Amino acid sequence: MNSKINLSFLVDFYELTMAQAYFKYKPNTQATFDLFLRDLPVNRSYCLVAGLEDCLDFLQNLKFDSRQIEYLRGIKIFSEDFLKYLAEFSFKGEVWALPEGSVCFANEPIIRVTASLIHAQIIESFLLNTVNLQSNIATKASRVVQAAKGKAVYDFSLRRTQGIDASIKAARSCYIAGCAGSSNCMAGLLYGVPLAGTMAHSFVMAFNNELESFRSYAEVFPDSTILLVDTYDYKKGIGNAVIVAKELEKKNKRLKAIRLDSGDLCAVSKLARKVLDKNNLKYVRILASGNLDEYAITKLIKRKALIDSFGVGTKMGTSADSPYLDVIYKLCEVSDNENDFLPRMKLSTAKITYPGRKQIYRIKNRKGIIEKDILGLEDESIKKAEPLLVKVMEEGKVVYSRPNIHEIASFSRNNLAGLADNLKKIEKRNQFTVKPSRALKKLKHKLIKQNKK
Amino acid sequence: MNSKINLSFLVDFYELTMAQAYFKYKPNTQATFDLFLRDLPVNRSYCLVAGLEDCLDFLQNLKFDSRQIEYLRGIKIFSEDFLKYLAEFSFKGEVWALPEGSVCFANEPIIRVTASLIHAQIIESFLLNTVNLQSNIATKASRVVQAAKGKAVYDFSLRRTQGIDASIKAARSCYIAGCAGSSNCMAGLLYGVPLAGTMAHSFVMAFNNELESFRSYAEVFPDSTILLVDTYDYKKGIGNAVIVAKELEKKNKRLKAIRLDSGDLCAVSKLARKVLDKNNLKYVRILASGNLDEYAITKLIKRKALIDSFGVGTKMGTSADSPYLDVIYKLCEVSDNENDFLPRMKLSTAKITYPGRKQIYRIKNRKGIIEKDILGLEDESIKKAEPLLVKVMEEGKVVYSRPNIHEIASFSRNNLAGLADNLKKIEKRNQFTVKPSRALKKLKHKLIKQNKK
Repeated sequence: MNSKINLSFLVDFYELTMAQAYFKYKPNTQATFDLFLRDLPVNRSYCLVAGLEDCLDFLQNLKFDSRQIEYLRGIKIFSEDFLKYLAEFSFKGEVWALPEGSVCFANEPIIRVTASLIHAQIIESFLLNTVNLQSNIATKASRVVQAAKGKAVYDFSLRRTQGIDASIKAARSCYIAGCAGSSNCMAGLLYGVPLAGTMAHSFVMAFNNELESFRSYAEVFPDSTILLVDTYDYKKGIGNAVIVAKELEKKNKRLKAIRLDSGDLCAVSKLARKVLDKNNLKYVRILASGNLDEYAITKLIKRKALIDSFGVGTKMGTSADSPYLDVIYKLCEVSDNENDFLPRMKLSTAKITYPGRKQIYRIKNRKGIIEKDILGLEDESIKKAEPLLVKVMEEGKVVYSRPNIHEIASFSRNNLAGLADNLKKIEKRNQFTVKPSRALKKLKHKLIKQNKK
Repeated sequence: MNSKINLSFLVDFYELTMAQAYFKYKPNTQATFDLFLRDLPVNRSYCLVAGLEDCLDFLQNLKFDSRQIEYLRGIKIFSEDFLKYLAEFSFKGEVWALPEGSVCFANEPIIRVTASLIHAQIIESFLLNTVNLQSNIATKASRVVQAAKGKAVYDFSLRRTQGIDASIKAARSCYIAGCAGSSNCMAGLLYGVPLAGTMAHSFVMAFNNELESFRSYAEVFPDSTILLVDTYDYKKGIGNAVIVAKELEKKNKRLKAIRLDSGDLCAVSKLARKVLDKNNLKYVRILASGNLDEYAITKLIKRKALIDSFGVGTKMGTSADSPYLDVIYKLCEVSDNENDFLPRMKLSTAKITYPGRKQIYRIKNRKGIIEKDILGLEDESIKKAEPLLVKVMEEGKVVYSRPNIHEIASFSRNNLAGLADNLKKIEKRNQFTVKPSRALKKLKHKLIKQNKK
């Protein structure tokens, strides 16, 4: 079946009502918005950015179709001239962004949009949704990969992600973050994520006995068989795997791995390793799955589990301990005439934002470790610092050479390598302070003063 | 833009490798699978079922296209005869299901599939993903609605749901569960969910001052203005709302509501109510938003907050305190010839399942409250009990008259009304024991014995 929906309508209703008011009162007003994290989630000291590719596709192709316009007309609060405007709408703004695979911190713009107020506002819901999902899962997956200490991690989350889109994007985000592959065929097809898979308990149960099921699978896939050994009794299961491995050897084939999916994975892995080694099957790998995440994997590795790779599903694919980012999209300047932008900031309790058109300046030490991030104004010159935001769109056209998924994964690996160890701790959030530049601080205080008058 | 993807490929890779082994060894084997919750999530004593509509669409239209077949060919482990089989594949099974809006408990089949092993297996990933997301959000939203004690709840989650699909399905699931509407335009268009919205802080900030922004909005939407009063200072904001309400009165119009989005919502609501009442604006409603869920709303209501409706976003739309269901899909019988089905069960530690083709029998008391659920075998006759699973597909054709979203919402309301109060507690999970029938128990013990031999 073909699911065919025009994503342009993924917009909060109030964006459109506000747009109608802007259409009347602020048709020529330009504005800049920052999309950023107000705060990092529990136990996270950084955010691994993902989602830009989908944002660019959305911005480039945004167009309301006649069915959508008709639907809005039926609500009876939109004027005909505004509906006509919407029907002809396409996004014409300038966009700066952190490339996918960047590491960032709270208060740093991930995407910065300068456009007509209406344009900048209408795209809010989609940008937030997209960056939220993909950066959150990428961040989570990078933690799982770090916990696995070099052992391969596979994404098995399709069955329990929050919907279809989440499943595909989770597979992509996990791969960007360092996973070795995914079970999700759609992600393989769309993005080139390497596919991985084993067998289900139901497969074993569909045969008269476990050994028969193992033999059948190995016969069909002599080069890529991973046997699930815990359907009935894992000791017998490991024994049956040994039998099948020996049968494969007679055909000059090697059993790839066995999979453990229940019980005390550490204890079972040690037993399995012993049995396999005793039978001269040192080459047979052990894959573990079942309720895993960075916390469980850290414990397994501390206990010296003899596991060679991890299949991680639900908890990674939903970022279960923190299923959303505190990501917001805030107006930071506004101009009624093109040459005179006025910085703005929100002052409500505990939600103060930084005004003005900003850039992130990153300073690394000689070893390439991130030492300091300075949040400054655009075009500041800060010594030894690298500006991180890149121009990706100009007048609604993409001006960014999009890297492929493997390039993004490699960029991500380099970025993660730039994090000091204390920022990679899994059980504790360490504060990496992003400092405002002197110019930004000055601007902020000026605005607070103005408001008090 | 049109997002056009063939959802058929939303399948875990191992479903296809297993299918190839079945294709060789078990081409005529029939099987029955149950999709059910192994356990209920934290603090939940029931599950509100949703997702059937998408499952039926998927099953009815499942077809692998040539691009997908070509992709699989490129992996070089699939045989040509199997790829030919896949290219011609369409789902031909029988499906029984709980209607959307049903209330169910752990171990009760939500969907039961009887089909050729290959057919039943290939659909696993999609069914799990869909029921997982939609039932989880529906359950969460029903808790939020209950906590609100009759005050309207609106879904504002689009910007932070886990992706595009989740945002649309969350809006639908929330409406089924009793929400009054959503901010998600796509859900309005696709499902007829009533739209709701207010204004953003950026709207207020885009004007020279708050009063000007309020006046402009009210001018454009004189019948549906909700003013956000906390951008700079909520006391001044409420004062400005009063001014605009009075100006609207001169045009025989009424300000609909004000919205509070930060600070101590309870205290601010009391102050706002006082100011509004003192100005003879008793009709102006107070809507509150900002980090709300069933726990926060319960506290606000206990403290007698003067809030008339709630805008609930992230935590409802992601079911943040429990972002997934422990939903599984398990083989429960298998037959190598059509007339001789053999029940199956999994025996690995802590993961035992019930064998056989099952039905749920529900017994209510005279007041309509659910007293007992009996998990029995198909076609048992249990006194005074209503069988809950309905046949929805026969040989791959839908044989179910699909209710519209408003009918589902009404069915859901009736189902929730059948829950005893102790099952609706928000802070505590109470066990409602689903008892196996005598026949089911007997079957289970027989299989355990057989396996020990």
